[in-house]
Amino acid sequence: MTDQGARAAAILAEISEISEPGPGVTRLPFTPEHRAALDLLTRHMETAGLTVTLDNAGTLIGRKEGPPGSGTFLIGSHQDSVREGGAYDGIMGIVLPILAMEKLHSDGIDLPFSVEVLAFADEEGVRFPTALIGSRALAGTFDPAVLSMQDAQGTTLRGAMASFGLVPDRLSALARDPKGVLGFLETHIEQGPVLQTEDEALGVVTAICGIERHLITLTGETGHAGTLPMENRRDALVGAAAIVTEVNRLGQETPGLRATVGALTVEPNVVNAVPRSVRMTAEFRSPDDDTRRDAGDTLHRFSQAIAAQHNLKIEAELTYSQVAQPCDETLSARLSTAARAVGLRGLALPSGATHDASALADLCPIAMLFVRCRDGISHTPEEFASANDMRLAISVLSEFLRSL
Amino acid sequence: MTDQGARAAAILAEISEISEPGPGVTRLPFTPEHRAALDLLTRHMETAGLTVTLDNAGTLIGRKEGPPGSGTFLIGSHQDSVREGGAYDGIMGIVLPILAMEKLHSDGIDLPFSVEVLAFADEEGVRFPTALIGSRALAGTFDPAVLSMQDAQGTTLRGAMASFGLVPDRLSALARDPKGVLGFLETHIEQGPVLQTEDEALGVVTAICGIERHLITLTGETGHAGTLPMENRRDALVGAAAIVTEVNRLGQETPGLRATVGALTVEPNVVNAVPRSVRMTAEFRSPDDDTRRDAGDTLHRFSQAIAAQHNLKIEAELTYSQVAQPCDETLSARLSTAARAVGLRGLALPSGATHDASALADLCPIAMLFVRCRDGISHTPEEFASANDMRLAISVLSEFLRSL
Repeated sequence: MTDQGARAAAILAEISEISEPGPGVTRLPFTPEHRAALDLLTRHMETAGLTVTLDNAGTLIGRKEGPPGSGTFLIGSHQDSVREGGAYDGIMGIVLPILAMEKLHSDGIDLPFSVEVLAFADEEGVRFPTALIGSRALAGTFDPAVLSMQDAQGTTLRGAMASFGLVPDRLSALARDPKGVLGFLETHIEQGPVLQTEDEALGVVTAICGIERHLITLTGETGHAGTLPMENRRDALVGAAAIVTEVNRLGQETPGLRATVGALTVEPNVVNAVPRSVRMTAEFRSPDDDTRRDAGDTLHRFSQAIAAQHNLKIEAELTYSQVAQPCDETLSARLSTAARAVGLRGLALPSGATHDASALADLCPIAMLFVRCRDGISHTPEEFASANDMRLAISVLSEFLRSL
Repeated sequence: MTDQGARAAAILAEISEISEPGPGVTRLPFTPEHRAALDLLTRHMETAGLTVTLDNAGTLIGRKEGPPGSGTFLIGSHQDSVREGGAYDGIMGIVLPILAMEKLHSDGIDLPFSVEVLAFADEEGVRFPTALIGSRALAGTFDPAVLSMQDAQGTTLRGAMASFGLVPDRLSALARDPKGVLGFLETHIEQGPVLQTEDEALGVVTAICGIERHLITLTGETGHAGTLPMENRRDALVGAAAIVTEVNRLGQETPGLRATVGALTVEPNVVNAVPRSVRMTAEFRSPDDDTRRDAGDTLHRFSQAIAAQHNLKIEAELTYSQVAQPCDETLSARLSTAARAVGLRGLALPSGATHDASALADLCPIAMLFVRCRDGISHTPEEFASANDMRLAISVLSEFLRSL
């Protein structure tokens, strides 16, 4: 039998061709590319002995039926990419479980429960300003109001799904009974450099970090940079610089916290005018919600003090927040055991990014397996995971399923 | 006789109507608005007993002939505005001298030298990426290469001047013989808040500040704000924030220095990505060139150290520099005396902004009289100088001319 890592690489290369024109992969939900990817995944699912259906959220489901009355273990990820993204983010987490199921199938192993490999339509939220449609539908947390959202061409989500042959008004019927679901496992590239730095192929996720995002607007007064004396200034950028420094200090000094000012815009933004206003974001992520909230509180107090010190008006808004989702300890322990069985350390690390597993946490215990990606980069055409690391991941997945 | 301050206000209101459509005043050089303004200024110059000509740089000259063999004192400013600017910047420095000359004329006073009131075409540099055409032509420092520069519509400066009836290739013939020029006095709104803060109508400029501008580009590495550990980051904005703070500290702590980061742009500038690069400006102004250069050197050393500390690539470029132009002590002393004669303090202050006087300093001794402007603001429709302050300025100008 061909090496499964090499097969995974070949299948992912084939799927990466299913893309809008341009560099890298652009595969958005409810498009001809989505359809073509599902056709190809269907073929591989059937080879693995799975029975394939498409639900009304556009989730492709490859099911291996277990004994009557047994529960179902879910395993999968998303088929979509960002614009000009890579060939691994999301889609790898569908292909590797298919190959793991194929291995169990060819080894003649029958599991004492049903397994469904899931290919969610949309996790990236690139086409519509919403995401996690398929995973939320299963968890029963899908908000039908988002069906009216439009893409850049004015097509509603409802219209796009209907054109894809789905019945969006039946999404609520997709909610699973928690009693019948044993858990959800997502395999994903790390999207960070920790595994590469640790020289380790795979990692077991401890928790999906909670996130909060703040939008801060500082408003002072502009003036001629040559004629406005220093002591009369209300320079919004001087205040903003102090906040950038503080956010970074919080991240550097607080264990488990990632703290970032990613966006900052200055008005009027010309060489010889004192900045009137600055709009800036601040984002905190942590697997521990208290750590994250403490950072947000510190930012709030610090920003108010800086605004007072520089005589600036301040508006601060919490634009987004999402609690941390701890991974299930039992499932994670089994994943670590499976990793050690193939010679790895079972290294534990948090996920700084959100995943379909975040939504499935509302339905069932979750676990995540991270695969090392080169230089920690994702969402670019250079995104890469090696065939060897993927081979190990397939072994861990099949070992994990056998251990349940 | 009507109050001359009220007349100045009325004339400036009339000229402010000569503008492109939109808020405030937009009067660019070598346009129909420029022509209409010159027609109106010509009428007022003739009323003041001046003989009016237009030179090949588009400078309107109202000359009062003195005794044969006597020198010529120059006095004036620019007719153009920024886009959506005010009714005082530049043009007030033409109207007030005309009214001062009118007063001397009606009082029957003959000065022992010739006087020329000058209305320069272009000081703001808004239409073409060059400025000070008329004043440089008189000083013999005009660079003919700029005649090929184009405006936003693709019209060259040469073409615009020719369409205005000028002969741009004869600009070099406009250079004055320094021996025949006694000095240049420019009257201008302060464009800053010092006189308002001091509760004083007029100020005598000590020097026009030297300027240097730096463009700094910091380049690190972007990454997912959730997945990139803090200790691996090469965050360009964190480095830039330290530089903003240092530039402001230099300005706050160094007497006579104004220090500003006016423009700062972040890439990729999204909430959940570590900033890859920042482009920022830093500007220093001082009436003392050593103070300014020391600040530039400090910035240079500090930025290199910050780049090394945060593992950032740095490119730093001196994009502009201009030495300070001290005002002539004798002329300034006479201006102070004239100010005190009308009950003012003769308050001395530097000019943070550049003016036509900066270019004339290459030809002759210069002096500048600042007029208080409301809230220190300029280059906006709200720009304002009071009729009373202008009345005082006219008195000081005529007193000054009589004292020479």
